[in-house]
Amino acid sequence: MADSNQVDQNDNSVPETKVLAIASHVVYGYVGNTMATFCMQALGVDVSAINTVNFSNHTGYKQWKGEKTSPEMISQLYEGLSQSTLVDFDVLLSGYIPSADALKVVVKIARELKLKRETMNPGAFFWVLDPVMGDQGRLYVSEEMVKGYKKAVSGGMEGPDLVVPNGFELELISGVHLAGGDTDQDGGELERCPTGDNYEASLEKVREAMEVLHQRDSVRMVVVTSVRIKGKQQEGVLCVVGSEKKSDGSSRCFTVEVPVLDCYFSGTGDMFAGLMVARLREECSKAGTLRNRGWASDDQVASTDLPLAKATVKVLSSMSTILEKTMDAKNKEMDKYDHTNRRASVEPQDAEKRRQEEVDERMLFLAQTKAAEVRAVRNARDLIYPKVRYEAKNL
Amino acid sequence: MADSNQVDQNDNSVPETKVLAIASHVVYGYVGNTMATFCMQALGVDVSAINTVNFSNHTGYKQWKGEKTSPEMISQLYEGLSQSTLVDFDVLLSGYIPSADALKVVVKIARELKLKRETMNPGAFFWVLDPVMGDQGRLYVSEEMVKGYKKAVSGGMEGPDLVVPNGFELELISGVHLAGGDTDQDGGELERCPTGDNYEASLEKVREAMEVLHQRDSVRMVVVTSVRIKGKQQEGVLCVVGSEKKSDGSSRCFTVEVPVLDCYFSGTGDMFAGLMVARLREECSKAGTLRNRGWASDDQVASTDLPLAKATVKVLSSMSTILEKTMDAKNKEMDKYDHTNRRASVEPQDAEKRRQEEVDERMLFLAQTKAAEVRAVRNARDLIYPKVRYEAKNL
Repeated sequence: MADSNQVDQNDNSVPETKVLAIASHVVYGYVGNTMATFCMQALGVDVSAINTVNFSNHTGYKQWKGEKTSPEMISQLYEGLSQSTLVDFDVLLSGYIPSADALKVVVKIARELKLKRETMNPGAFFWVLDPVMGDQGRLYVSEEMVKGYKKAVSGGMEGPDLVVPNGFELELISGVHLAGGDTDQDGGELERCPTGDNYEASLEKVREAMEVLHQRDSVRMVVVTSVRIKGKQQEGVLCVVGSEKKSDGSSRCFTVEVPVLDCYFSGTGDMFAGLMVARLREECSKAGTLRNRGWASDDQVASTDLPLAKATVKVLSSMSTILEKTMDAKNKEMDKYDHTNRRASVEPQDAEKRRQEEVDERMLFLAQTKAAEVRAVRNARDLIYPKVRYEAKNL
Repeated sequence: MADSNQVDQNDNSVPETKVLAIASHVVYGYVGNTMATFCMQALGVDVSAINTVNFSNHTGYKQWKGEKTSPEMISQLYEGLSQSTLVDFDVLLSGYIPSADALKVVVKIARELKLKRETMNPGAFFWVLDPVMGDQGRLYVSEEMVKGYKKAVSGGMEGPDLVVPNGFELELISGVHLAGGDTDQDGGELERCPTGDNYEASLEKVREAMEVLHQRDSVRMVVVTSVRIKGKQQEGVLCVVGSEKKSDGSSRCFTVEVPVLDCYFSGTGDMFAGLMVARLREECSKAGTLRNRGWASDDQVASTDLPLAKATVKVLSSMSTILEKTMDAKNKEMDKYDHTNRRASVEPQDAEKRRQEEVDERMLFLAQTKAAEVRAVRNARDLIYPKVRYEAKNL
C-alpha cells in the first residue's frame, strides 16, 4: 500500500488491468455493474461495461421499469469492440445475465477472449464467473439457466478461472447438498431448495462441493461468498470459504469468518466480485503468478498464503467497514423517517384508515430499501485502504 | 482539502450530492456518462445514470455498434424512479441526447424535478445543461435539436441554472457570432458554421453572448469550455470564459487561460461537466449559497471570487494534469506501435501493396484513437487533489 503522505501520487497497488464487465445496470442505487464497476474503478481498474439490463432500480424494491438487453445486442456490442480492436481485456467479470440465450452469448465471448488472449500468453486472460441464480433457497432464474451455468462452469480450459457463488448457487452447480443428504454430481435434476432459509451447512460438505468443481469441472479457484455453518450461526458468524486446486485435483481450502449484520443489503455479491477482480490481480502480481495459466500458485503454497486468500481478506475487510457504515446511516435515516412520517393524524374512518395504513407500509418499505443502498461511493477510501479485520484460516 | 495523513478518513470536501446524469454510455473508453459518472463518483457524488445510447465505443473511432435509447424508454426509466420515490436529486446533469423527441423528455424531467424540489426549498435542485450539438463549426445533431436546445435554455425559472457550451455551441444558442459579424438573437436561422475551424473570437463578443443568455434567457451561470481568442491562439493558449449574472442582468465574466495540447481527446466536455457539478457544489457549499435559488452569489462578489470561477480553476487544473499524462502515455504507446507494426516486409505487388497500406492506415487510426482515451480512472488522485495551476482573471 502506498505511503499516505504522497497524496499527489497515484498510488495504484493494482497493476494496470482492463476488465470487460457483463452485468446489469440500474439508474438508482448500487447493484450489478453499477456496483462492480465503481468498486473496480476506485482501485484503478479500467472497466468496459456491457449492461445486460437497463432498469430504473434493483428488483428488491418489488417494482421497476426498464428493459433487458437482447442476446443479439450483447453480441453486437462485443462485435463493435472486436472490429475496432478494443478487446485487449485482462479479465472478464460476468454477473447477472437475463436469459439462457444471453448466457450462451456470454460463454461464447469468454471462449473467444480466452482463445485470442490466452493461447500464446498464459495468464493473459482470466474469467471470473458469478453464477447469479438465486439466494437462500430461492431460485430467480429459469431451470434452463441453471443447466447453462453448469455447462459454462464445466468448460475446462475454456471455462471460468474463478467462480464466486453463494452457498445456494454452489449447491446448484456442484450438486452437493451442503447441509447433508444426497449428492448429485452427474447433472441430474437436483431437487430445488435443498437448503431452505434456515439450513446449516457443514464445512466438510462445502469442501466436497469445491472438490467437485476442481475435479469434475477443472475450475481452479472457487470462493463461496457466504455460507451458514452449523454451530457458527448462533455465534452471529457467516463463513466465506475459498479454495485453489492443486495439480492432483485436491482442494486447498481456507475460511474467513465475518460477523452477520442485522440488515439486508442488495448488491453485496457484485461488490465482492468487483473488489475480488482488483485484489486478486494485485495479490497475484505480488506473488508473481500473473504469467501462469489461470494465475496458478505452486502446489506447496499453503491455503492461507494463496493470493486468493489474501485477496479475500482485503475484500471482506473493505466490505464489512462499508456495510457497517451503511447500516448506521440507514438507522439514522429511518429514525428521521419515523419521526417525520408517523405522527398521529386526524382519526380517519375504518376503510380509509386501512387504505392509509397500506400506503404507509408501502412507503416505509420503499424508504427502508432505499436507505439500505450500499454507500460505496461516499466511502471509497474504505475500498482503497481496507483496515484488515479478518484472517484466513486453513480448513 | 483533507489532511493527507488521515488516510482512513473519507475526506469528502464535496457535500453529499445526488445527481441524475442523462447522457450516453459506451462500453469501451471514456465519453458521456462513462466519463462524467466516474469523475463525479471519484469526488464522492452519488450518480444515477440514464444512458441515452448504449454504444460499443465513441463515434470518433468512425465505426461502432449498439443502439440509441428511445424517448419512451428514457421517460419510463424516470417513471420507474418516480414511482419508488427515488427522485431526491440535487442536480441534473444533461449531456448528449440522441433526438429532438428525447430532448423534449429530458426538458420535461428537468421541469418536473425543479417543480418538485425547488418550489418549497430554494437551491434544492440545480440543472447543469451541456448542449451537445457540435464542435469547431461542425454540427452533429439535427436543426430541430438546435431549436430544441434554444428553447430549453430560454426556460427561465424552469430552465438550466448553468450552461456549459463550447464556443460553437455558445454561438448556436446565443445567436452571437463570436468572431464578429451579425448578431441574431431573435432565434432566426443563424448561418451554419459562422466560426469555422480557424476562427478567432474576441472576448468582447463572448461577453456579448453571455449577456444574451443572462438577459434574454435568464440563465444565471454560463461557462464556455473552450474558445479561441484572437492573439491568444498564437501563444498556444485556449480561453475558458465564465460568468454569473448580476441582478440587473449584466455579466460578471472571468477568464482562465489554459495551454493547448497537441492531441485530440474525446470526452473532455463530459469530463468538464462532471467535475464542474462536484466542484461547483463544493464551492457553493463553502460560500454558503446552496440555499439560494440557482445557488446565486451576491452582486458584490467579484467575478474571480465567484464559486463558479473557483470551481472552474479546480476543474481545469485536474483536467490539464490528466490530459498531459494521457498524451505522454499515448506517445509511448504509439512509439511501441510503430516499432511493432511498421517494419519493412517482403515487397508485395502494387495492388496488394495499396490494399495493405489502407489496412495499415486504418489500424493506425484505430490505435491512435484508442491510445487517446483519457486516463481518468488510473489517475483518479489528480481528480481528487488538483494541483492548482491556473488562475481566474477578471474580464
